[in-house]
Amino acid sequence: MAAVAVLRAFGASGPMCLRRGPWAQLPARFCSRDPAGAGRRESEPRPTSARQLDGIRNIVLSNPKKRNALSLAMLKSLQSDILHDADSNDLKVIIISAEGPVFSSGHDLKELTEEQGRDYHAEVFQTCSKVMMHIRNHPVPVIAMVNGLAAAAGCQLVASCDIAVASDKSSFATPGVNVGLFCSTPGVALARAVPRKEALLHGLLSKVVPEAELQEETMRIARKIASLSRPVVSLGKATFYKQLPQDLGTAYYLTSQAMVDNLALRDGQEGITAFLQKRKPVWSHEPV
Amino acid sequence: MAAVAVLRAFGASGPMCLRRGPWAQLPARFCSRDPAGAGRRESEPRPTSARQLDGIRNIVLSNPKKRNALSLAMLKSLQSDILHDADSNDLKVIIISAEGPVFSSGHDLKELTEEQGRDYHAEVFQTCSKVMMHIRNHPVPVIAMVNGLAAAAGCQLVASCDIAVASDKSSFATPGVNVGLFCSTPGVALARAVPRKEALLHGLLSKVVPEAELQEETMRIARKIASLSRPVVSLGKATFYKQLPQDLGTAYYLTSQAMVDNLALRDGQEGITAFLQKRKPVWSHEPV
Amino acid sequence: MAAVAVLRAFGASGPMCLRRGPWAQLPARFCSRDPAGAGRRESEPRPTSARQLDGIRNIVLSNPKKRNALSLAMLKSLQSDILHDADSNDLKVIIISAEGPVFSSGHDLKELTEEQGRDYHAEVFQTCSKVMMHIRNHPVPVIAMVNGLAAAAGCQLVASCDIAVASDKSSFATPGVNVGLFCSTPGVALARAVPRKEALLHGLLSKVVPEAELQEETMRIARKIASLSRPVVSLGKATFYKQLPQDLGTAYYLTSQAMVDNLALRDGQEGITAFLQKRKPVWSHEPV
Repeated sequence: MAAVAVLRAFGASGPMCLRRGPWAQLPARFCSRDPAGAGRRESEPRPTSARQLDGIRNIVLSNPKKRNALSLAMLKSLQSDILHDADSNDLKVIIISAEGPVFSSGHDLKELTEEQGRDYHAEVFQTCSKVMMHIRNHPVPVIAMVNGLAAAAGCQLVASCDIAVASDKSSFATPGVNVGLFCSTPGVALARAVPRKEALLHGLLSKVVPEAELQEETMRIARKIASLSRPVVSLGKATFYKQLPQDLGTAYYLTSQAMVDNLALRDGQEGITAFLQKRKPVWSHEPV
Repeated sequence: MAAVAVLRAFGASGPMCLRRGPWAQLPARFCSRDPAGAGRRESEPRPTSARQLDGIRNIVLSNPKKRNALSLAMLKSLQSDILHDADSNDLKVIIISAEGPVFSSGHDLKELTEEQGRDYHAEVFQTCSKVMMHIRNHPVPVIAMVNGLAAAAGCQLVASCDIAVASDKSSFATPGVNVGLFCSTPGVALARAVPRKEALLHGLLSKVVPEAELQEETMRIARKIASLSRPVVSLGKATFYKQLPQDLGTAYYLTSQAMVDNLALRDGQEGITAFLQKRKPVWSHEPV
Repeated sequence: MAAVAVLRAFGASGPMCLRRGPWAQLPARFCSRDPAGAGRRESEPRPTSARQLDGIRNIVLSNPKKRNALSLAMLKSLQSDILHDADSNDLKVIIISAEGPVFSSGHDLKELTEEQGRDYHAEVFQTCSKVMMHIRNHPVPVIAMVNGLAAAAGCQLVASCDIAVASDKSSFATPGVNVGLFCSTPGVALARAVPRKEALLHGLLSKVVPEAELQEETMRIARKIASLSRPVVSLGKATFYKQLPQDLGTAYYLTSQAMVDNLALRDGQEGITAFLQKRKPVWSHEPV
């Protein structure tokens, strides 16, 4: 993706657009500036960059070291770049791409620990849902250009765009259930973009296999599910079908709440903690 | 599928789990027992079997001689196996498979004759709809493992599961319209699982053909439809679109009613009767 | 498609069915007659023909010189052929096909100019929506047999049929946005027939490309969008998502209104005018 990346100059003096590759010779009419800077320290670089040319705004997730995780700072920066001069006639289409080999790994799990607390969790999911709604409600089409892994909320971001173009290096996953956090909010966008059965347990897809492998494949899936936290899977399944027939706003309201509830489960916290401690989670399967 | 089948011992003294194949050496923690026995004689074996191991419950449709038809007894047995200890933490996932070369042929047409009567018909469709809703509302994911034909309500059962794994020996069909009974209840699950046009008249699929075959293929489909009972097709088409935007419970309520109405049509009964008499149906096309 | 075409005799004395090809030897039980003749001069031939045989009604769009454009006259003729004796038991299935290399190019843009006026525009879209609803609500299945381009409202007609059979010579497009008229009403049918992302900007599809072509393909799409009228795209995008969760009748009501509003935009008229003058449109991008 190096040829695509529009690099930002990092620095406290404010962002400056550096360009290379095929667009390098073109003048930028719009370079994103740090709007509120909420949720990050002054010294930190902006996690997205944006430039606009000939009606096309390029927004780039620019925190490859953190796999472009959708931290609260990243989400607010993305929101700012999306909403900037949305009603200007100079803007015709938005492209969202990413720097580095991972498009986005999803939420920053460090922001989802018990120490951060329920209110912070709620802010993360509500902000994320708002960004997705802003894309949907934006007056111009939004294209996701994906060249690498888009996982969990990163996958949701792709599914929320009006158009998606992916390379053969791209992959998509909603692996949250492995760390005890069912991808309920991503499910809202996925269920509205891909066929139903594919959406429920992405990565645990419905499939057709040769007869000789039928039992093996089915058992592989069953064992995988049996190894997960039961209350997490159960909450996730129920939430998925509950949001499905709702309008988008209601669906995001319901699922944002479900994400917070999921995190409040003992297994929700165990999953996040184990991930951060780089160990396997030990599920209690307790329903609270 | 012999290697997969978990055989039940037949006998009045109650079911006992016999196992063979790869799981034979494993102890069963759960063996299904005859719950109510409604709708079948004491001497008849239970039409499903179930065993549970390591959080995985295997429910097997075990009436291959009757092509695992979803008779009222089969549906109640299946319902019992699905709901058994649903809230136990020992249960993480359910697999539904079938013994023999047919996954399930759908409803037992002998239960849908005029002699059985409208109330019995209603009980059959309501029980079937309840089983599908139990799968949807179950706290754990349900996998259909399909190795053979799944037809009509059998196809609906697969589409109602959260995940489906099928072998290359599997096939799917909703041929009810051929015997004068439009697959309205199966359509509820199918329309929510597969793309729209595929769902309406499964087996009469929308397709792309070489130009030279276009007229031939279109006429094949048109002649097929023209050979069916007009009031049955008409009721089926109207019901399909009526249930489509409804929530699942309403959709099953509407379509269960439509199935009973369909059976009450002269052509509904002619179709069932002709099938049981192994002759071609003679449609009256009368709208009642 | 010559072998398929059921030709009409042109003439003021009323239509007569001429047949050739495989059905030529068969007697016609139904030949469409000019019903109201609304919207066209006496001397003009009927723009559709219809004949019925063995329960199968063949309706043929028969104005290949005008690429079977869905003019108001064509729509009324089609409506008449669809509704003719709809409740007759002799009718079991309808096939809609077309004469010539284009199935249908969509609305007749000459009917959408400023001179025709807002009321006329409204009549065109309301009549078109009614035809689509008649197909949906018709008691018998309707098959589209497509052998060539189906564009805009022509594409909508195919998507509105219960079954579609297409040849390898067929293609589908909703290019209205190129002439400043977003295909909002076609989007109603398309969004209900094909996966979501494909429906929004047909021809600007979501796709997977080799890594080396990712930026090029994304930029091709972005430049295409940037070259369109912003208020047209913006109205189209908003309308698409607004109609999506609605029932079919409401969806057509909303989008018919949107089509009229779109035509009333300065760029809506510029697009139509430029097309008729065979020049490139010059977009003002003004929001009124």
